[in-house]
Amino acid sequence: MKYSSWFSGLEEVDTILISNGGENAIDKAFFYATGVDEGIFEGSSVIVTPDSDRARMYVYSLEEQSARKTSHEVITADSQAHMKDNISVALRGKKRIGVNFSSMTLEMFNDFRSILPDAEFVDVSKNILNSRMIKSDEEIKRLREAARISSEALPSILQHLKEGMTEKELAADVVYEMMKAGADGPSFDTIVCFGPNSSIPHHSPESRKLKRGDFVLIDYGAVYRRYCSDNTRTVVFGRAERKQKEIYSIVYEAQKKAMDMVRDGVNGKEVNQKALDVINSTEYKGRLMHGIGHGIGLEVHDHHALGSSDFTLRKGMAITDEPGIYIPGYGGVRIEDDILVTEEGYSLLTAPPSKDLIEVS
Amino acid sequence: MKYSSWFSGLEEVDTILISNGGENAIDKAFFYATGVDEGIFEGSSVIVTPDSDRARMYVYSLEEQSARKTSHEVITADSQAHMKDNISVALRGKKRIGVNFSSMTLEMFNDFRSILPDAEFVDVSKNILNSRMIKSDEEIKRLREAARISSEALPSILQHLKEGMTEKELAADVVYEMMKAGADGPSFDTIVCFGPNSSIPHHSPESRKLKRGDFVLIDYGAVYRRYCSDNTRTVVFGRAERKQKEIYSIVYEAQKKAMDMVRDGVNGKEVNQKALDVINSTEYKGRLMHGIGHGIGLEVHDHHALGSSDFTLRKGMAITDEPGIYIPGYGGVRIEDDILVTEEGYSLLTAPPSKDLIEVS
Repeated sequence: MKYSSWFSGLEEVDTILISNGGENAIDKAFFYATGVDEGIFEGSSVIVTPDSDRARMYVYSLEEQSARKTSHEVITADSQAHMKDNISVALRGKKRIGVNFSSMTLEMFNDFRSILPDAEFVDVSKNILNSRMIKSDEEIKRLREAARISSEALPSILQHLKEGMTEKELAADVVYEMMKAGADGPSFDTIVCFGPNSSIPHHSPESRKLKRGDFVLIDYGAVYRRYCSDNTRTVVFGRAERKQKEIYSIVYEAQKKAMDMVRDGVNGKEVNQKALDVINSTEYKGRLMHGIGHGIGLEVHDHHALGSSDFTLRKGMAITDEPGIYIPGYGGVRIEDDILVTEEGYSLLTAPPSKDLIEVS
Repeated sequence: MKYSSWFSGLEEVDTILISNGGENAIDKAFFYATGVDEGIFEGSSVIVTPDSDRARMYVYSLEEQSARKTSHEVITADSQAHMKDNISVALRGKKRIGVNFSSMTLEMFNDFRSILPDAEFVDVSKNILNSRMIKSDEEIKRLREAARISSEALPSILQHLKEGMTEKELAADVVYEMMKAGADGPSFDTIVCFGPNSSIPHHSPESRKLKRGDFVLIDYGAVYRRYCSDNTRTVVFGRAERKQKEIYSIVYEAQKKAMDMVRDGVNGKEVNQKALDVINSTEYKGRLMHGIGHGIGLEVHDHHALGSSDFTLRKGMAITDEPGIYIPGYGGVRIEDDILVTEEGYSLLTAPPSKDLIEVS
């Protein structure tokens, strides 16, 4: 049964309610539970039980047609009051109801408490996360496709580079090339950095113009049927100077050495430390100030993975490996790939990065 | 003082903590409070007080450079444990702390409760929402720019229409044209519907191919410096049949009549009813099954506005006006514009829609 593991270890809980708030409080577990491919589903809910693969979707009329493309039961509402009525009828008499504490807002929680005053709400976030962390074959297929799209778009993206273009213009080209290659959309706001801006890990593209000798850092990803890729490539426009090549080589080595440690059962903290060790043994000590990888799936940052805290990698997890070196005022290099953890090692989802710094002329 | 209204009516609360969770629990109030233009700021927080316009931003090192572009105080952390320490030191001894119940998840709330066991957390969501609903001059400037971008991109978008192209291909063109026109990105996943798919309000673009005589419904929007536009245009590829023109005219009239009612002090429910009355007086009765408008700002769906519940429109609010008629199996028309509510009426942010159904040849 699809949902049964969500109930593991929960006493007397036979119902889980997954609910979406507004556009910034959408619970990706709603899509995990329903598999619905289109629509936004603000304010929608889904109720699942351990003994059936058929869920009950509570949606607004405007998304009824989208919901009915699934095999689940669909109950529609025309207003918030109507939606509350539907949920309260469905859950009346339940003593303990599982909800996702990692997504439900205090406001939603108070609303549900007011319509179901006798129920106790039990946190099922860990069970859902544990289930989501291990990808199914169908999820891996979608992740591979999202990664294929971003990798295949790269050569076309690099062809757009020309002197004087702005970061924002290149960001437009990046999204366009991914969508032409089959993406449903970008998985996050594309990061494009020219020159010194590449030292800012979450820089937003602006009107800086491309100059010969600039680092070009592109951190981008595709969504394919709700699953994300997350890919970073750093190249130089024109001829690279020695320092640029040196930094790239160190980051490449850090990424590769970390990746080579990945396998079922390894602690992500040690993988992260490996990349730090490579970088901290050079003059660029201290220039990597973020964890080197995170889970990837329905969310770009699907779960913790490679950072400063303990985390056991398991077969079937999809994660990124993305060390970087950042030198304020000079620039930075990040190399990021998506990999699937296997019994004996890993399988690359994205196409492998170039061993040497690419010079785009 | 910028933040003082956030504290109105709250007894003994002199500190508000706005916090981001992961990518699906980002509180747009964080950006409202800080004005920071770039970065993602997962897991970041900001603390504001009523007597200072300078906030304290608690961010991870990877976004330190982005945060320091603002005039606020910036405190960095290298790990989640470090972040918790920083927040707990900052708020130690506070008896009552304001937080945003409409965005904070139960998990975040429990985390804060565990590091600040003596504090009481007070819901400030209504104050923040009330403040956010009335747009400042700077916000209006950004909204106008976002709306200008989506409107100006339209002619170029329509030039891409050609027989046999897929919805996904056109969606790629839509995003590309907006970004070329200055968008930081799309404000939501672009909706492109050909033919009968236009009867599905939240349809996701797929591989359906464009045929002569198809409705082409495009629901799209731009982000400009974090502010959104939301625009829908419906045209016909090739020659329109009479029924298509008739449906378009009715939706146009519904949109216009509703818009003409908008002004400071009017109940949004009545504006919504006006559009329903126009549509329900025709043979398409019952074919509009969603509220006709929502607030627009840092979020595409910024707040409730024109629906079945009472809501007083106020000068300075930015809202959409987007009635539609949807006929499953045949198709649908939606026309959506962004407007600013004024003392005496409204000001269009988007360029006005065509009075007659456009036939693209």
